[in-house]
Amino acid sequence: MSEIRKDPVTGRSVIIAHERTERPRDFDPDDWTRLEGGFCPFCIGHEDATPSEIATFERDDRDDEADWSVRVVPNKYPALSTDEALVEEEHSLFESTSGVGAHEVIIESPSHVVTFGNVSADQVAAVVRAWGGRLRDLRDDERLEYAMIFKNRGADAGASLEHAHSQLIAVPFLPPTIREELEGAADYHGRHDRCVFCQIGDDVFEDGERRVAQNDDVVAYAPYAPRMPFEMRIMPRAHEARFERDADDLDAAIADVLKRTLQKLDRALERPPYNLVLHTAPLADQDATDHYHWHIEIIPALSYTAGFEWGAGCHINPTPPERAAEHLRRVPLDAADA
Amino acid sequence: MSEIRKDPVTGRSVIIAHERTERPRDFDPDDWTRLEGGFCPFCIGHEDATPSEIATFERDDRDDEADWSVRVVPNKYPALSTDEALVEEEHSLFESTSGVGAHEVIIESPSHVVTFGNVSADQVAAVVRAWGGRLRDLRDDERLEYAMIFKNRGADAGASLEHAHSQLIAVPFLPPTIREELEGAADYHGRHDRCVFCQIGDDVFEDGERRVAQNDDVVAYAPYAPRMPFEMRIMPRAHEARFERDADDLDAAIADVLKRTLQKLDRALERPPYNLVLHTAPLADQDATDHYHWHIEIIPALSYTAGFEWGAGCHINPTPPERAAEHLRRVPLDAADA
Repeated sequence: MSEIRKDPVTGRSVIIAHERTERPRDFDPDDWTRLEGGFCPFCIGHEDATPSEIATFERDDRDDEADWSVRVVPNKYPALSTDEALVEEEHSLFESTSGVGAHEVIIESPSHVVTFGNVSADQVAAVVRAWGGRLRDLRDDERLEYAMIFKNRGADAGASLEHAHSQLIAVPFLPPTIREELEGAADYHGRHDRCVFCQIGDDVFEDGERRVAQNDDVVAYAPYAPRMPFEMRIMPRAHEARFERDADDLDAAIADVLKRTLQKLDRALERPPYNLVLHTAPLADQDATDHYHWHIEIIPALSYTAGFEWGAGCHINPTPPERAAEHLRRVPLDAADA
Repeated sequence: MSEIRKDPVTGRSVIIAHERTERPRDFDPDDWTRLEGGFCPFCIGHEDATPSEIATFERDDRDDEADWSVRVVPNKYPALSTDEALVEEEHSLFESTSGVGAHEVIIESPSHVVTFGNVSADQVAAVVRAWGGRLRDLRDDERLEYAMIFKNRGADAGASLEHAHSQLIAVPFLPPTIREELEGAADYHGRHDRCVFCQIGDDVFEDGERRVAQNDDVVAYAPYAPRMPFEMRIMPRAHEARFERDADDLDAAIADVLKRTLQKLDRALERPPYNLVLHTAPLADQDATDHYHWHIEIIPALSYTAGFEWGAGCHINPTPPERAAEHLRRVPLDAADA
């Protein structure tokens, strides 16, 4: 049974989840490809190998015989569980909460696709729809404060299975990274009466130096102070606090930029391991709507979290974002993808 | 030339240091040992291969012919430099500071030692003395706010050379991790009129479940909310805000616990890669003396910083600290080391 513990000095939460030591890995840690003859529990026809599905999602252009395009299942080795009661304990210095939360896996293709950037734009849009659907569904659970969608691609980015998938972890507390962003955004809004992310988007467009890809509704860019070489952000150009909108009008535009950005990254750096995270407003927080702005962060796993980063909470990045963006802008895509 | 940039939303600093892309590595990334026939610039007799030394330190029991026991040199591929003038720029959303700071390498042995835990206790004490000496020396530079000493052991922990060494990076801003600790400690002190670290130390002693090693003056323990399996802290039992005391009365006691702790870790987990960081009060901050308490953090590089950790700023750790501490307590040391 998991437990969420608070550091007695900083108040930061850590999830102590010992059941996760037992999960299998289909990677040879030194090799990105799946072990020969390995069985993939995420492929169509192997549905029995995962817990029963939470939801399935279709794509618009369905032309194969699969009865699902995107499938969402509980993580078999969950860090947190919705079956737990929310119990808070405090003794002397130490505070803990029972491991209540959700831990889901979003299987991004029925066939054994390894490179998410290579699936069709319609399939990426189905994944985008699935992410939104899961976030909307979890809003009703009052124990949960935040749901984080993320993706680990490649063993060096922490993935244990290679079949394209993302994950969702919902927690009964506000993650420190989100708290920091909300506070910074509220502060900027208070001083300038404007969303700081909208302002960043304007700057990316005017200046152009850090722009990577865009369409009418969505932009991908290298942030001003990236923690990792080739780090990127994707966000809507119009103000929008929540990724999980009730309308799906932006899904195709998001999928278009996401697919092209990941393809550029894969071609520029020969399919690097990366992490992708989705930052959206907290599940129940209505106050964030005027100053927060959802965005996707793509963080290539190209250097280590070493001593200075652990100790200082500050990264050293050898690649200026202007140089990374220029390099990525020049990566040609196939005619069908460009 | 490096540049320190602030994230426009969170205010977090990032060091953009492109010169560091050029540094060589003597690791085969898949193998911990030094490449055969590789030249080590840190070995005695190779002093010409590094920039001129900043300082040298002796150990008490010198019985070899080396004219230094610990040697401190500027990092050849520095993230920051003391030669820079402190220039601050601000345009629209974006704030940056020139890359002023220090980046030093502390060579921890004249001979080619790979495992710091295996050097003599006197040699470890000489390293501890060198750390303090460097911190004291940097107090005079008014441009610097904080000096972080850290150690990356093993390629998977970010080390690029295997000869035992630590590093010092001094920065013209307060690192977020230290700010968080100072705020948490000041808050606890305000409420309880006591240092939170002293309270944690008492608890470790009374309860005993998370204790790993100790002597009369110093204790090593697994923290209540560790981010990584087998994470440990080392700190003095008596209240002490600064590691860089003017007296060297604690050096032998620190070296004793540090050496035994690292040996236990090496034996329990077969010489894992790890990061070690030293947290002490900010260089010039006199206010921290009543509520802050220096400590060393040892963080084995046993799992990845993956999507959830990047996105949430919160770690998932499969190993409860009570279990790690019990395991480490039971690791036998040689009679001479115990």
